[in-house]
Amino acid sequence: MDVVIVGSVALDTVEAPKGSVQRALGGAAVYASVAASYISKVGLVGVVGGDFPRQHIGSLRKRGIDLEGLEIVPDGRTFFWHGRYELDINYRTTLETQLNVFETFSPKLPESYRQRPFLLLGNIHPSLQLDVLRQVREPRLVLCDTMNLWIETERRSLLRLLRQVDVLCINDAEARQLTERMSIPAAAAWILERGPSRVIIKRGEHGCSLFSRDDGMFSVPAYPVAKPIDPTGAGDTFAGGFIGYLASRRRIDGAAMRQALVFGSVMASFCVENFSVGSLFRLKGATIAGRCNDFWRATQFRAFKFGKWKE
Amino acid sequence: MDVVIVGSVALDTVEAPKGSVQRALGGAAVYASVAASYISKVGLVGVVGGDFPRQHIGSLRKRGIDLEGLEIVPDGRTFFWHGRYELDINYRTTLETQLNVFETFSPKLPESYRQRPFLLLGNIHPSLQLDVLRQVREPRLVLCDTMNLWIETERRSLLRLLRQVDVLCINDAEARQLTERMSIPAAAAWILERGPSRVIIKRGEHGCSLFSRDDGMFSVPAYPVAKPIDPTGAGDTFAGGFIGYLASRRRIDGAAMRQALVFGSVMASFCVENFSVGSLFRLKGATIAGRCNDFWRATQFRAFKFGKWKE
Repeated sequence: MDVVIVGSVALDTVEAPKGSVQRALGGAAVYASVAASYISKVGLVGVVGGDFPRQHIGSLRKRGIDLEGLEIVPDGRTFFWHGRYELDINYRTTLETQLNVFETFSPKLPESYRQRPFLLLGNIHPSLQLDVLRQVREPRLVLCDTMNLWIETERRSLLRLLRQVDVLCINDAEARQLTERMSIPAAAAWILERGPSRVIIKRGEHGCSLFSRDDGMFSVPAYPVAKPIDPTGAGDTFAGGFIGYLASRRRIDGAAMRQALVFGSVMASFCVENFSVGSLFRLKGATIAGRCNDFWRATQFRAFKFGKWKE
Repeated sequence: MDVVIVGSVALDTVEAPKGSVQRALGGAAVYASVAASYISKVGLVGVVGGDFPRQHIGSLRKRGIDLEGLEIVPDGRTFFWHGRYELDINYRTTLETQLNVFETFSPKLPESYRQRPFLLLGNIHPSLQLDVLRQVREPRLVLCDTMNLWIETERRSLLRLLRQVDVLCINDAEARQLTERMSIPAAAAWILERGPSRVIIKRGEHGCSLFSRDDGMFSVPAYPVAKPIDPTGAGDTFAGGFIGYLASRRRIDGAAMRQALVFGSVMASFCVENFSVGSLFRLKGATIAGRCNDFWRATQFRAFKFGKWKE
């Protein structure tokens, strides 16, 4: 196992312009693990209740995901989220959140998970993320996600956490909220001064940027999805693809990071094409590779050679 | 002269979080012409009133812009726009618009402008844009801009116009409004079926995408500006830089289009760093080239080579 992924495992009810699903498999750790599973060996750390369908366990195992870290609370209920997307699916409303077993979740890493080189701290309470960090031994790369709730209510823990992670992965609105800087490059600079050597700013359908202390900025658009169905989990899928790719290359230099960003974006593009993990479960390697190559073609251009200027 | 640029010449009062200017030089044709002037020979077609400061005429001439097509109505007043940007300068409110001489503007191309290879139809009434097209002889490339107002009120003229332009340049919200398709790739496909062989979708601070019938999609992020001051005219600057670059290369193939998109983005990044055309007037070629090269470094990555997949 190369990658340990900690986060929520959920049942999601999602209403979107083109359909809906009820109590479908979801959660940050699920999306990220499935994405990473195509290219690296993954162990998942999370918690579910006795109501969690056995078939989902089977589906995750079929993807080669190690579930020793998945705690099952027989008399508890699984984390449940109910959301609705607007006609412009960049906007959504949360209609209901039941934390259930997630409310008292305290992630415990099995002994076999503690010395793994790549760790993804999915979006959970920052003090739990710090707990996980105390359980691992010399990880090579720690990638951390968070959300607006923790930025508002747990700022101190979050800043303590930042000092111990290598890469922070957040969206543009969260970056502005955390740093109180409106410009994204300025927000990224603020974050790079507080611990992480790299920060990924996700911009939804507009792609994402990687800011590095040693490699400046690198930006990619999102892979264009003609018929997006459900963006739930796209950010988690991205993060899982990103760290999975790095683990597969066993390199964390600038060139690998850039490709990893693209790989994460490609995995996220599959995610939004169906509800839940519907389009993520049965991908072919050739399909993923094809989209990575499309991505390359859609972003590369010749270096400039200028003649005389009209200054 | 290689490029003819038709559009508004204005005096703008702008309030922004970091300051304000009153009755400063503005207008789509001005921004676009100044941007293009660094790399090609430009003729401007527009109208101003007797109140238009002589010094602005001098400044434009100093940039080598031909003003034979600039009509001066001595007893009229120049188009005036007053807007205010929010703390998040992606949002703005128009406080006042005085069309003045622009209300009865009917662009007339001087004879020397009629056989120029590159034509930029800035955002004016679609029937005026059609008028201009009737005055030119076999242009090599026609680039056209428009706005939400014309999409709402002049849909028929706009669709007639589309059949006669090579490249449409609009922002993402306008593309959705025009096509009634929420997804940008779907909106672009709709437009490519109605005349233009290429469409540029601008995404503000998130960059832009070029969709081509023969070259698929090409996307670039925006050049990251740490301290944006005033985004007024950024889209026009982009369009001017884009067409100016193509004119300088005398090529309109896919590779040149891609570089032109980057060149336009770079010129737009200078635009937002100061009020009005403040930071656009005295650029050095080396500064522009440096930013183009930065852009290349910030977007290029190695092609993928995959090993065995875990399907």
